[in-house]
Amino acid sequence: MAEPLALDGYIRDIADFPKPGITFKDITPLLADGPALAAAVDGLSRPFADLGITKVVGMEARGFIFAAPVAVALGGGFVPVRKAGKLPWAVNRQEYQLEYGTDLLEIHQDALTADDRVLIVDDVLATGGTAAATVELIGQSGAEVAALAFVIELGFLGGRAPLGDAAITALVTY
Amino acid sequence: MAEPLALDGYIRDIADFPKPGITFKDITPLLADGPALAAAVDGLSRPFADLGITKVVGMEARGFIFAAPVAVALGGGFVPVRKAGKLPWAVNRQEYQLEYGTDLLEIHQDALTADDRVLIVDDVLATGGTAAATVELIGQSGAEVAALAFVIELGFLGGRAPLGDAAITALVTY
Repeated sequence: MAEPLALDGYIRDIADFPKPGITFKDITPLLADGPALAAAVDGLSRPFADLGITKVVGMEARGFIFAAPVAVALGGGFVPVRKAGKLPWAVNRQEYQLEYGTDLLEIHQDALTADDRVLIVDDVLATGGTAAATVELIGQSGAEVAALAFVIELGFLGGRAPLGDAAITALVTY
Repeated sequence: MAEPLALDGYIRDIADFPKPGITFKDITPLLADGPALAAAVDGLSRPFADLGITKVVGMEARGFIFAAPVAVALGGGFVPVRKAGKLPWAVNRQEYQLEYGTDLLEIHQDALTADDRVLIVDDVLATGGTAAATVELIGQSGAEVAALAFVIELGFLGGRAPLGDAAITALVTY
């Protein structure tokens, strides 16, 4: 078997983005490299191949980039969680905390049923605010969150705490 | 070989979205169905399997959902084109026309080189404004646009006209 790719070599630090004092983890070099992208999708899907996943939920916008190919790899459907006003049909809403104030995430009311087993996929686990809001939205449908998978975990921000007991995987941890 | 899926059966009309008088083509039922999603990704990638595609470019946000798995299917990299201010590194910008006024699309300056052969993937070809701006952004890097692939083409809007001579595929045409 080939040596696994060191994915952290494809992630670059951008100083002061989106604002002064923040170091942003830029995944576009990883995305632009075919083998690295394929390895990331494999790492986000293979651990869950035997869990009976029926739907993969991804959060707007960078979450879409990984969640959609993970859904294809697992043979499941893809469900988008979007910012307020973007989804065209009837939605459920969940507020989540920003640094200052709050924002809303939405999911279509018919996106999931109580029979679904869901894998949540996003690019980064930071404080866990959007992931926790997504867990809450999924729970409202009666579906089960089987696991959460992230490309990057910023461990020092403690984002696992609000996510309950579901299994959590991250490919690269800082 | 199995009968191909009729993908238009997974697209629903939403009246008066995003504003009165517009009928929006909602692809979320297609995304949520594993076999339909897999068939769409196959339809967007298989025709280009022998073109030597090195990068698949997708436009924020729904374009990401198809472009990323198409990149994985073709073994290429994925390059995001985003709205102004979202990409963290140095960008090239291109203005495009909205119904009233203009907006900006951006691509990282190091995303493509003159050696790249590019497939552009988006969910909908409408007036062709965002696709034409994306073709322009790719041209600035010296890369070649080998083809464009869309899930839906709204043929009555004439969106092929501004896209030049590149091959254009759509899975469902209205």
